[in-house]
Amino acid sequence: MTPPLQIEAMGSFFVGGRTVVVEGEPLRAIEMSRDVPAYTFDPNGTYAIDHAHVSYVIPVGASRVPVVFAHGGGMTGACWETTPDGRPGWLTSFLRAGWSCFVVDSVAVGRSGWCHLPGLSYGEPILRSEQECWTTFRIGPEEGYGARTAFPGSAFPVDALSALARQMAPRFITTSELAFAALQAAVEKIGRCVLIGHSQGGGFAARVASAMPGAVLATVLLEPHSLPARAVGPQLLVMGDNIERSEITAQLAPLWAHYRTTGPQVDVMDLPSLGQRGNSHAMMADLNSEAVSALIREWIEKTLTEAA
Amino acid sequence: MTPPLQIEAMGSFFVGGRTVVVEGEPLRAIEMSRDVPAYTFDPNGTYAIDHAHVSYVIPVGASRVPVVFAHGGGMTGACWETTPDGRPGWLTSFLRAGWSCFVVDSVAVGRSGWCHLPGLSYGEPILRSEQECWTTFRIGPEEGYGARTAFPGSAFPVDALSALARQMAPRFITTSELAFAALQAAVEKIGRCVLIGHSQGGGFAARVASAMPGAVLATVLLEPHSLPARAVGPQLLVMGDNIERSEITAQLAPLWAHYRTTGPQVDVMDLPSLGQRGNSHAMMADLNSEAVSALIREWIEKTLTEAA
Repeated sequence: MTPPLQIEAMGSFFVGGRTVVVEGEPLRAIEMSRDVPAYTFDPNGTYAIDHAHVSYVIPVGASRVPVVFAHGGGMTGACWETTPDGRPGWLTSFLRAGWSCFVVDSVAVGRSGWCHLPGLSYGEPILRSEQECWTTFRIGPEEGYGARTAFPGSAFPVDALSALARQMAPRFITTSELAFAALQAAVEKIGRCVLIGHSQGGGFAARVASAMPGAVLATVLLEPHSLPARAVGPQLLVMGDNIERSEITAQLAPLWAHYRTTGPQVDVMDLPSLGQRGNSHAMMADLNSEAVSALIREWIEKTLTEAA
Repeated sequence: MTPPLQIEAMGSFFVGGRTVVVEGEPLRAIEMSRDVPAYTFDPNGTYAIDHAHVSYVIPVGASRVPVVFAHGGGMTGACWETTPDGRPGWLTSFLRAGWSCFVVDSVAVGRSGWCHLPGLSYGEPILRSEQECWTTFRIGPEEGYGARTAFPGSAFPVDALSALARQMAPRFITTSELAFAALQAAVEKIGRCVLIGHSQGGGFAARVASAMPGAVLATVLLEPHSLPARAVGPQLLVMGDNIERSEITAQLAPLWAHYRTTGPQVDVMDLPSLGQRGNSHAMMADLNSEAVSALIREWIEKTLTEAA
């Protein structure tokens, strides 16, 4: 039987963003519900926008710096909670290993809310279909979607494709700089930490590591994109299987190869070469997620020990 | 020192909603990031929509039915995590008292994501300003906002008004039936439980209690609106202070008085008459939130014991 998790504290806070004042907008008549008479909504006023929500869980006796999780584009912090097929997510495996965990919902997704004010809209969002999850997340070939025929040896739980699609949130394509700023604000608030970023969140994590080298002690980049010009501090690039079989990751592979050469310590974790085969782009969702989590924790421990 | 929380499991899942297929829509050119060449977004495909995200924390030895938290309109499950001024929220106080807790992010807010597909849009959302938080949440009179002059004896932490505003999410005014359906789907999945609903979430909780009397063993309604015609099962109506000083709750008061008469057991917890003074509409955020939480847990314990 798994021993209980001993938790010292859990909760959440908001970081970053700004306050704006909306003025001169017309009132709007609203019929809210059966029991509340129609009321007049006044869009004018003072609003908090562009912030990010951070939830945290602190295990008893956590003696090391915390880990901060930055999800990928079009996803939310939910991707770390539980796998699409219902197994405990990396949040639980890191907590069980004694790490304090901070999970960011980036600007405009998840519990961060999003801005929809006159003249301050983030524009038109895009949403991922199951088909786009299937191909972009490198679960299988495009023609395999209908019959759920994944790449041979795929580690993704294909019956849970629809649950993976539910982890997707509308994605604004105008919020990258806001998301970077909010992740930086999160690290400013949390202090010295390890950053783990997935996909677009990996790009933000690498940029924050460049901007705050004293605070970010190690950075784990899960198939990242939008990387900065130079890698700062110890970093780990983690790649799954079948990289060449997706248009996007095939394009990213040479950028990753170049990125390795831009910093004093950029380690590479090529999962297939370590015996972890079939990983999709969503390696925290795959059937071997626990084994991948353990490999990453091992690198973090080793890296922090060497730096100490 | 506070003893550690002993947690058996934590995670999340999605409930309810449906799958839709989008066809015949034009492609859209996207410039996503610096490192990924412009790509063509295909909005056609299969999408999961209208579902709700539920996170859960199960303490060791939880022997009673779980508690399900349904937030109010324009908010997310974040309102139960931590108070705006940074104290532990009701999630922690219920966990410490040994209750398994399920926190719902309703349809279209928080980690549930929202639907923004051709022909399936939820319409134009509204967002609460600080001023609307101030008046609608009954913190103080309209003219008191600028100087943060709250009602005399207000229990709301007025310096944290901006943090309360950050807990607000864009609110679609077309999703009530979807939200009700998703809360019902949550209870179907969770099984026998106690429901706690705030404001609009109280209305949904009371409707689910009517629809599923065998599953909902007790219902706590925090200044609810959109109540059903009849109260089913033991229910508790919880009211804060200064009810008559807000237009909305002044209108709701006679509806609450009537609702009491529609069921065999609708108890009333008028907080000021119990010595808890100054509570705003967001009583889980107020300075006496722990005392209010304790009173509610006491009612739940008593009610479940009497029913057993």
